[in-house]
Amino acid sequence: MQHAQFGASGAQSKPRIGPWVFLNGEFVPAQDARVSVNDRGFLFAHAAYEVTAVFNGKLIDFDHHMLRLERTLAGIEISQPALDFGHLHKEMIDRNELREGLVYVQVTAGDPGPRDYYGPEVFEPTVYMFATHKTLISEVAQKGLTAITYEDTRWQRRDLKTTQLLTQTLAYRAARRAGADTAILHEERIVTEAASANLWIVTADGTLVTRDLSSALLPGITRGRLVDLLDSDGHQIEERAFSLQELGSAVEAFTSSTGVVIAPVLSVDGAPVGSGSPGPVTRKVQAAYYQYIRADLSRLDWL
Amino acid sequence: MQHAQFGASGAQSKPRIGPWVFLNGEFVPAQDARVSVNDRGFLFAHAAYEVTAVFNGKLIDFDHHMLRLERTLAGIEISQPALDFGHLHKEMIDRNELREGLVYVQVTAGDPGPRDYYGPEVFEPTVYMFATHKTLISEVAQKGLTAITYEDTRWQRRDLKTTQLLTQTLAYRAARRAGADTAILHEERIVTEAASANLWIVTADGTLVTRDLSSALLPGITRGRLVDLLDSDGHQIEERAFSLQELGSAVEAFTSSTGVVIAPVLSVDGAPVGSGSPGPVTRKVQAAYYQYIRADLSRLDWL
Repeated sequence: MQHAQFGASGAQSKPRIGPWVFLNGEFVPAQDARVSVNDRGFLFAHAAYEVTAVFNGKLIDFDHHMLRLERTLAGIEISQPALDFGHLHKEMIDRNELREGLVYVQVTAGDPGPRDYYGPEVFEPTVYMFATHKTLISEVAQKGLTAITYEDTRWQRRDLKTTQLLTQTLAYRAARRAGADTAILHEERIVTEAASANLWIVTADGTLVTRDLSSALLPGITRGRLVDLLDSDGHQIEERAFSLQELGSAVEAFTSSTGVVIAPVLSVDGAPVGSGSPGPVTRKVQAAYYQYIRADLSRLDWL
Repeated sequence: MQHAQFGASGAQSKPRIGPWVFLNGEFVPAQDARVSVNDRGFLFAHAAYEVTAVFNGKLIDFDHHMLRLERTLAGIEISQPALDFGHLHKEMIDRNELREGLVYVQVTAGDPGPRDYYGPEVFEPTVYMFATHKTLISEVAQKGLTAITYEDTRWQRRDLKTTQLLTQTLAYRAARRAGADTAILHEERIVTEAASANLWIVTADGTLVTRDLSSALLPGITRGRLVDLLDSDGHQIEERAFSLQELGSAVEAFTSSTGVVIAPVLSVDGAPVGSGSPGPVTRKVQAAYYQYIRADLSRLDWL
């Protein structure tokens, strides 16, 4: 289902990579981009990344993404590259004629020579960027997702956005085998987040619940923006852990992420969440966020 | 200290990468080896690896390494490449004129196109190999290592040898900052293993203790060989978890690994282990393993 998309424009399209990528100081055609086999991103997953949404040609919450990138880099001992990432993101948008989609940036510890855990005291990072044309307000936003549950086997610093992404990969593949769209990660039946999104539930009294920030989960930029937006809209929000059992008795559930923005969760391990269709609170949350990014709500007749 | 080495020959030498590497079906000069930025090894750490020791031009316990590689690949849903790894390892040895050192092999989920967690049902793997000239019975084996303790933040499938190696990287770097050689990983003060080696202790009654196998640690090939060798030599061995406290009261400690083979641990967080010098049981263990790989013990006057 992740490939079936349609946008505010009504046009159906698959995500498509822009022709220009940025690699180590240069814009190069995507098909020519290669890195050294000694790159520590390839040998040790010694790399941070960020994905920023673009809507109407504008970056969404870019400063928050760059602050998180700095934080991840500090956490894995890579110095901040001496680059103007704001300028580079804008150039990625221009060169790839990106109106709606994503800009990806990965910063690795580079290639300091033959494989060696320690590496030099200071790394010369590899910086790789690409752009994806993609409708952010997609069919998934309208119709929702089905989910499985999956044990969260990730490392203990999930607050850092690194390329150690095997758990997420295996969770998505397990979901697909089960005929579902995504996976909800949990530790001993306590939810951490979804496979590459934060998870929210709506309780019977209308309270919105999402897990409080800690090293157990990624501090989602969309999650953080929603907390602010919903709080100023007068919604009751609780940031706390919740169990799979509480998820099972929620009246609504949805994910928040950069790539799919806000997606209703229809079922978990085959059991419907609430009515099994996108609920009214989820629709209000979507409307609030879509307004924030200045989408034309009048074209979203399902909202 | 990891670079100061001398071998059975008495010659001092730094590890040196052989000029020929193997990448995607071809032997190429090391400096030309590049992989696609879409390689899932680069984007998702979706990769398994093995390092096999070579002594006197012969691979040590090669079949065990290849079985573990198969097991890791199955665990991360990459099919076994249709390659004769035995032949490739021998060709790596020949082309690089390797008498003593290591052959590294990494198998990633390849480049199936633009970044997407799911990937295709079946991957066409990327296979990368290189050879390192290195003395296996080194200064470290004679003189020993100093260690710090470091919280084991790795993912929950440490029995799989993947490139999710950030914890190990950060642990080694923390060790270096503390003026130590390596790190001993623990969860709530229960030892899992060393940063890239298994850990053994010798208790006051002469029993050898190393952690029992589970998803909490890597099933080291050298560890497994030592269990067999020491058992047939009549040593008392216990495979069980032990704490940092028990390590602190051990009379000897040593690590086992492919690259450094058997290294005495002299101190932990600045406190000496036992006498603070390599002990007699460690020397017996070294002698047994060196005999197994047919080293000339008469040239190791420190043994």
